[in-house]
Amino acid sequence: MSATATSEPSRVMVLMGSDSDLPVMRGAIAVLGEFQVSVRTEVTSAHRTPDRTRDIVRSSQAQVFIVGAGGAAHLAGTVAALTTRPVLGVPLAATSLGGLDALLATVQMPAGIPVPTLAIGEPGARNAALAAIAILALSDSDLDQRLTAYRRDMVAGVEARAERVRQALQSGTP
Amino acid sequence: MSATATSEPSRVMVLMGSDSDLPVMRGAIAVLGEFQVSVRTEVTSAHRTPDRTRDIVRSSQAQVFIVGAGGAAHLAGTVAALTTRPVLGVPLAATSLGGLDALLATVQMPAGIPVPTLAIGEPGARNAALAAIAILALSDSDLDQRLTAYRRDMVAGVEARAERVRQALQSGTP
Amino acid sequence: MSATATSEPSRVMVLMGSDSDLPVMRGAIAVLGEFQVSVRTEVTSAHRTPDRTRDIVRSSQAQVFIVGAGGAAHLAGTVAALTTRPVLGVPLAATSLGGLDALLATVQMPAGIPVPTLAIGEPGARNAALAAIAILALSDSDLDQRLTAYRRDMVAGVEARAERVRQALQSGTP
Amino acid sequence: MSATATSEPSRVMVLMGSDSDLPVMRGAIAVLGEFQVSVRTEVTSAHRTPDRTRDIVRSSQAQVFIVGAGGAAHLAGTVAALTTRPVLGVPLAATSLGGLDALLATVQMPAGIPVPTLAIGEPGARNAALAAIAILALSDSDLDQRLTAYRRDMVAGVEARAERVRQALQSGTP
Amino acid sequence: MSATATSEPSRVMVLMGSDSDLPVMRGAIAVLGEFQVSVRTEVTSAHRTPDRTRDIVRSSQAQVFIVGAGGAAHLAGTVAALTTRPVLGVPLAATSLGGLDALLATVQMPAGIPVPTLAIGEPGARNAALAAIAILALSDSDLDQRLTAYRRDMVAGVEARAERVRQALQSGTP
Amino acid sequence: MSATATSEPSRVMVLMGSDSDLPVMRGAIAVLGEFQVSVRTEVTSAHRTPDRTRDIVRSSQAQVFIVGAGGAAHLAGTVAALTTRPVLGVPLAATSLGGLDALLATVQMPAGIPVPTLAIGEPGARNAALAAIAILALSDSDLDQRLTAYRRDMVAGVEARAERVRQALQSGTP
Amino acid sequence: MSATATSEPSRVMVLMGSDSDLPVMRGAIAVLGEFQVSVRTEVTSAHRTPDRTRDIVRSSQAQVFIVGAGGAAHLAGTVAALTTRPVLGVPLAATSLGGLDALLATVQMPAGIPVPTLAIGEPGARNAALAAIAILALSDSDLDQRLTAYRRDMVAGVEARAERVRQALQSGTP
Amino acid sequence: MSATATSEPSRVMVLMGSDSDLPVMRGAIAVLGEFQVSVRTEVTSAHRTPDRTRDIVRSSQAQVFIVGAGGAAHLAGTVAALTTRPVLGVPLAATSLGGLDALLATVQMPAGIPVPTLAIGEPGARNAALAAIAILALSDSDLDQRLTAYRRDMVAGVEARAERVRQALQSGTP
Repeated sequence: MSATATSEPSRVMVLMGSDSDLPVMRGAIAVLGEFQVSVRTEVTSAHRTPDRTRDIVRSSQAQVFIVGAGGAAHLAGTVAALTTRPVLGVPLAATSLGGLDALLATVQMPAGIPVPTLAIGEPGARNAALAAIAILALSDSDLDQRLTAYRRDMVAGVEARAERVRQALQSGTP
Repeated sequence: MSATATSEPSRVMVLMGSDSDLPVMRGAIAVLGEFQVSVRTEVTSAHRTPDRTRDIVRSSQAQVFIVGAGGAAHLAGTVAALTTRPVLGVPLAATSLGGLDALLATVQMPAGIPVPTLAIGEPGARNAALAAIAILALSDSDLDQRLTAYRRDMVAGVEARAERVRQALQSGTP
Repeated sequence: MSATATSEPSRVMVLMGSDSDLPVMRGAIAVLGEFQVSVRTEVTSAHRTPDRTRDIVRSSQAQVFIVGAGGAAHLAGTVAALTTRPVLGVPLAATSLGGLDALLATVQMPAGIPVPTLAIGEPGARNAALAAIAILALSDSDLDQRLTAYRRDMVAGVEARAERVRQALQSGTP
Repeated sequence: MSATATSEPSRVMVLMGSDSDLPVMRGAIAVLGEFQVSVRTEVTSAHRTPDRTRDIVRSSQAQVFIVGAGGAAHLAGTVAALTTRPVLGVPLAATSLGGLDALLATVQMPAGIPVPTLAIGEPGARNAALAAIAILALSDSDLDQRLTAYRRDMVAGVEARAERVRQALQSGTP
Repeated sequence: MSATATSEPSRVMVLMGSDSDLPVMRGAIAVLGEFQVSVRTEVTSAHRTPDRTRDIVRSSQAQVFIVGAGGAAHLAGTVAALTTRPVLGVPLAATSLGGLDALLATVQMPAGIPVPTLAIGEPGARNAALAAIAILALSDSDLDQRLTAYRRDMVAGVEARAERVRQALQSGTP
Repeated sequence: MSATATSEPSRVMVLMGSDSDLPVMRGAIAVLGEFQVSVRTEVTSAHRTPDRTRDIVRSSQAQVFIVGAGGAAHLAGTVAALTTRPVLGVPLAATSLGGLDALLATVQMPAGIPVPTLAIGEPGARNAALAAIAILALSDSDLDQRLTAYRRDMVAGVEARAERVRQALQSGTP
Repeated sequence: MSATATSEPSRVMVLMGSDSDLPVMRGAIAVLGEFQVSVRTEVTSAHRTPDRTRDIVRSSQAQVFIVGAGGAAHLAGTVAALTTRPVLGVPLAATSLGGLDALLATVQMPAGIPVPTLAIGEPGARNAALAAIAILALSDSDLDQRLTAYRRDMVAGVEARAERVRQALQSGTP
Repeated sequence: MSATATSEPSRVMVLMGSDSDLPVMRGAIAVLGEFQVSVRTEVTSAHRTPDRTRDIVRSSQAQVFIVGAGGAAHLAGTVAALTTRPVLGVPLAATSLGGLDALLATVQMPAGIPVPTLAIGEPGARNAALAAIAILALSDSDLDQRLTAYRRDMVAGVEARAERVRQALQSGTP
């Protein structure tokens, strides 16, 4: 998205089955943005628009695909069948089964076409972006350094949370 | 298969993801055979051979599709996206989760592309054939009569089972 | 309902166990209305009114039945036992188990009496109507054309969603 | 069965959907036999033989019904809809889901028609018989005494098992 | 409760583990009230007050026990171990697992001590009362007639719901 | 926490993966407070801060650890691998799966490193504290007496709930 | 068991509901034997022998209880209600649900009476023994040293397994 | 393993918790071998040998990690916490829950540390290798060509299976 001004192709393609998936998938887009990794976002459906899906994937030069889908979540598998690039699946909790359907429909791929799958919902969307970054960082030492720094910052984040708990407990005691 | 000698196209297409699905899917083929409904059987994979799947479905003149698949079972949904003809899904128990994965991956389709789904495994395969027959019988009075007769025979079948239980219980008591 | 003014029998019968199921089952009725397929809607219970259920089904000339039920959802199976016409089941999320109970109670029919089952809740209701239309379209070329057009319109719908996502992402970036 | 020599009607009716359910349902028949409670056993199917089911239940003078069924187990609910007598359900593990389908399809009845349900499989069959005996014992003091004695014998049974464990552990240590 | 003014013991004992279960268990109490069956209600815990539970059950002259409990729901089994009278279990959805824990902890009793179990939550509470009434009606022809009338009234109830659906659909169309 | 004024080390360490877990884990802290058992509370993450986790556990003199975590809940197992002291796990319902993921990820430890696990959510947090107290009470007769008294008080608590139910039922009847 | 020759009471009590649970519960007994912790083993049932259970628990001087049970596994909770000593639950896979029923029936205890629960089956039995040892080691430095040594030996065990894998892989390559 | 003769570090590290996991994890090793990707295999445990795990991961120069584990499968998450390289999780069906526990314990990682997860068991092991190859192929055009060829060969494989089904069906008909 943010990369469209430049002529370079986006390094990551984020796909989702519906615009109603955007609030969750924004988690992936935001993390990629923090790492300044160019991303293109598209809505397409494995079932309603198989040709559109095929065109988007086959014409893309993205190095990694992040695909979110709910219910009988086939989109990630469909994308994985159309490219040899890594395709990361994000199961969405779009039905009354809390995303268990999407998880199993995404992760239980038969041997031959892998869909490495992240957690259900927003943690999964954010982690899909981090996994894409880890993959890209293998041949991008700049990105690798930013990922190492991000990990280091997480330590500070946990310490800040610990401090917040300490204060909450102290203020609660007379 | 049995219909290939004739020049008429098969009325039902049975698709499965692997030859290891045949023992279960034979249940559908056998029922269709009992009703003398012509059937073509093919192995194709939603993920490993998306082009083959597309060619088979788009070139087929079958009126009903019966599709068996296990794990993250996408084949039925993929077929349903390629045709407006009724596509019946049969989830197979191909993993350690007893077919719950295949059931959810088949039945939980989003609105737009339906995959009416039968039970996991052989009862589902047999019932998919019976559902296909019920669909074809709407415009084939001969088939409709055979289906009515089949239902009547089921009564006799249940009575025979009742007799078997009666004898088993009597022989067991001194 | 809408068909009662004409003397022709409705082509699809929509059955549900309770008036509390109407908000979900309206999804089926609405889709059938869009396709101008005549539909009759009735409330009946497999357990509380078995005779009423029997009378409604046996006296109906509908070609396809769509049956929604929750909990230990027996209504679709009960209807399927009373007719040789196709009976499509819609499991409803009416209990604290999110519809898993209704799904299993609908789909896991033993061999002999099929209940092709759609997704839990409203996507399932809408897809049941689309499956009924696909069945009727086998011998109604007019309906077949409308179904083909409906599929084509879905492509435009997905493209509109993609555009909405594009705008949401752009407006979010400074 | 054992009671057919006498002209008195059986006090308990044991119903099952198939003769393949007999090995499990024998558990119920055996317990009723131990308590000398007359029992009639029949095979009938909610779906394949709805009329037979109706005739058997409506013409029966049994005071309690015990109904075993697997998969989308509707037989107990169907029987409960046909009688005001207590109907006890026994879910059978007849599919790849280990009886979870039969349990939910039996126990999750909507308000109005109860099916008090026992455990999946043979423990459930045996306990259905014991529950039927507890029900009959409310107005049969003789049976009540036998049930009290049965409970007392269970204590001795547990003590015998404890002794067996003690010996197994001692023989295992040098 | 309502029977305490008379000197006769209550015919049904309703037990629950906590006063927070009352909103659901009121369903059972209300149905018993409609049938004028005397009922005593108590709160007791299998684990926190095992002695109280023992005293209440052992001193009770109730003919049927209805026991509601959530989580690792042991109360019904504990009561069943203390009496030979029928004990009906009502699993409550008291945790984040939607009552699946309470259902399995109530229904999966080992052979020897049955706990016939009803549906999770309020439908189960109401049906437990109806099952208790069916049990008591075996030796109370007056109650039997009221149960038969209740069933008849359910038919009118379903017809009223059907009428409501008819009107909702008509008012929705211009 | 409350014990930090004294130079003595806390007897129980409460760990959680995030400050968002505090509302639930406060249940454990409150119970320990009622028993005047000194407690130290820390936020640390098995994955984001493995070194911090190691330092906190290895430097702690706590006799019992109580660890709450959600999702793929590894924190309790990670702590258990770092100490031979008892580590009690509290699975938290932090995802759309209602805590089933955290329960299985906490309790299903392979042989060698035990994580005795309590119920999902707040009941589990409170019970973890009571289990820690039962463990400490084995060598602290004062604490043992307080635990015995606490149990006695629970009887009065249940009786108070029974009284509340009695009044609610009476006020509801005219 | 092994400790009965001495006059000292056993430090750990292992309880199970049936002698059929012994093969799994032997895992706990064996580990306790390796650590020379005296153990008494008894068979008793929460439901079939509530008095026996009460007598065994109330008269026991064991410091820790290990309780294995399957199905609607109530034994651990029943024991926990009878003692303030730590009670560790081991859910057994005794039904067609693979132990999920026993796990939920053991772990989901309401606040007030904790049952710290280990994994389903033998790993859980072995870990229950190790957890009991960790508890006893808090006031038994000898046992604490043996536990530390046991942990150290596990490292060697893992290294031996790594060596075995290395050899299996080498012998498999020409 | 096979790469140890050369001085170059292995490109992929395969880790498992026990030598009993080797039969499944061999699937990953075999696929990597087919693609001539150097692999080192080690057994280590997140819980029993946390230091060994840390040493192996921190000293490794592998570009991708493939980690198989069963039960409360923490090994993949533990490894992911120790490296910024991509870590692919393979849940193993090592308990009575069919791998559902391992799947949830692997995939439901909180935001921050991703573990892209493949299917339960051998299909997952094979697909983990293929995903690792897809990752490495991003900067290795030779590997990319081999992956493209592998995909092409899968088409021939599916066609061979289709032929086998054709022959099985023909030989079965007289």
